[in-house]
Amino acid sequence: MHILIIGAAGMVGRKLTDRLVRDGGLGGQALERLTLVDVVAPTAPQGYTGEVDLRTADLSLPAEAAALAATRPDVIFHLAAIVSGEAEADFEKGYRINLDGTRFLFEAIRLESARAAYRPRLVFTSSIAVFGAPFPERIDDTFLSAPLTSYGTQKAICELLLSDYTRRGFFEGIGIRLPTICVRPGKPNKAASGFFSNILREPLVGEEAVLPVADDVRHWHASPRAAVGFLIHAATIDSDRIGPRRNLSMPGLSATVGEQIAALQKLAGDKAVRLIRRAPDPTIARIVAGWPRDFRPERALGLGFKAESTFDEIIRIHIEDELGGRIA
Amino acid sequence: MHILIIGAAGMVGRKLTDRLVRDGGLGGQALERLTLVDVVAPTAPQGYTGEVDLRTADLSLPAEAAALAATRPDVIFHLAAIVSGEAEADFEKGYRINLDGTRFLFEAIRLESARAAYRPRLVFTSSIAVFGAPFPERIDDTFLSAPLTSYGTQKAICELLLSDYTRRGFFEGIGIRLPTICVRPGKPNKAASGFFSNILREPLVGEEAVLPVADDVRHWHASPRAAVGFLIHAATIDSDRIGPRRNLSMPGLSATVGEQIAALQKLAGDKAVRLIRRAPDPTIARIVAGWPRDFRPERALGLGFKAESTFDEIIRIHIEDELGGRIA
Repeated sequence: MHILIIGAAGMVGRKLTDRLVRDGGLGGQALERLTLVDVVAPTAPQGYTGEVDLRTADLSLPAEAAALAATRPDVIFHLAAIVSGEAEADFEKGYRINLDGTRFLFEAIRLESARAAYRPRLVFTSSIAVFGAPFPERIDDTFLSAPLTSYGTQKAICELLLSDYTRRGFFEGIGIRLPTICVRPGKPNKAASGFFSNILREPLVGEEAVLPVADDVRHWHASPRAAVGFLIHAATIDSDRIGPRRNLSMPGLSATVGEQIAALQKLAGDKAVRLIRRAPDPTIARIVAGWPRDFRPERALGLGFKAESTFDEIIRIHIEDELGGRIA
Repeated sequence: MHILIIGAAGMVGRKLTDRLVRDGGLGGQALERLTLVDVVAPTAPQGYTGEVDLRTADLSLPAEAAALAATRPDVIFHLAAIVSGEAEADFEKGYRINLDGTRFLFEAIRLESARAAYRPRLVFTSSIAVFGAPFPERIDDTFLSAPLTSYGTQKAICELLLSDYTRRGFFEGIGIRLPTICVRPGKPNKAASGFFSNILREPLVGEEAVLPVADDVRHWHASPRAAVGFLIHAATIDSDRIGPRRNLSMPGLSATVGEQIAALQKLAGDKAVRLIRRAPDPTIARIVAGWPRDFRPERALGLGFKAESTFDEIIRIHIEDELGGRIA
């Protein structure tokens, strides 16, 4: 089996690669060839002895997508995107990368499938940013996509294309709307959502973290491990069970900041909680107020997608996967 | 005031042009210049003495859109599209005209607005084809767009772009989802929806019409006069009242074929009804079964959009506007 990962150098891409290598295959088929693509050079996975092709490519050039489709991978994970903040700051770049880049990929597969029978599985990472306020307390599977950012608009458009290209038989597409990934490994960054991870990750290693919103702010979370599980499940599930609506809100855990902190306290004690410094930021509070807080992802649950059910579990996964099982 | 109509040679485009000329303006401003564009040559409106520019143009060429935007119209009606059947039969042409053509127009306006302050009103005709089965008995304003045709996909994508370009301040966009237009003037055509009009229009002039579905088939209708009314209202309404969700399901009349026939009987008698020949067509019945039957268009109603409330009214409008007030 030949697997292509576009956006392989990102956090989720690297974890997905590691998982595929560790599993040695996907859905009972052995992994024989791996193509890893990103705008920055992807690194070769450790412990993998099969054929591997590392490519640095800009997907917003149609020829790149055509070259990738010509290698006829069995499964394609399309994770590449510029993030919300950048797509908002640079209108043209956002549409070029997040919309045109994805459409070039879809078109390249369509043209490849017209050349000789070919119908790969294509797993696309969408986002809960396709939803814009006002929304109900819990967003169900028939709620409209009315995004309030260019990033969300680009993702929502790609979702529509994915369903139509799948209906036409050009590929078997599945779009998965990821919750906010928590605990996100790495250093604090400037993303407005960063604090949801910072307030857990930093205290766990004895560092201070800033909390810019109130404790009663509610949000929708899943661990990096759950995100990789969604991708694997989307790649192996019976495509016919999904039906014509190819985009699914993934399960997750709806929790308040207070509930996050209570879980941290339980696992790492008061000394960890004391490292959270409250510094209210009205700008961040206003942005976060426009984000979904909870979902009723019945279709995804019915199809067997699974996320965490407590924040204890989310923090324990971080300690296992990122800290070698130890906390400061 | 300078008004641009793209798709001016179509049925709705011609009726809109006539109405604007008859009114002599729009929203209290005099009509001084009219630019009429279509892929086939538009005809000059009768009785109009202002400046008129008739253009034959293919909007799927970016330079055409740039040339139109450079004339800086105050109001743009974008009605041009290839129809559902053709977009389904010719995948590439559908995306080229219905998606790329619209995006080129939006981009041309964005670039024109970057050159020097410019923010036109843009009224876009979308379609109830953005909705795909299964849906509730009545579709409300928060129901998802999950189209089951390439045409519906293209319209849904343009809706998303329209909202984002409006949010960004490049134009004041409003997308209106038209019900099926009934009674559609002209000759019977091969559209699957054609019979909804045929079974009224043909008997009213003493001609036979074929009914391919059962009398209990329910559908969503508005007259051509109501459609023009929607366009005019969309062009003049206070933009801020619409908010960030720029696409609205228009009001209409939900009626069964049996109710259509009862109205025909009331206005034109048994001899008209006897001209309806029942010839069940399972293919058409299956297509129609996937279409929306009823809506709860609360936002549009709240914003003052108005449609007919009985089929008597819809037929009377046809008799007045198309038959000079006389029936056979």
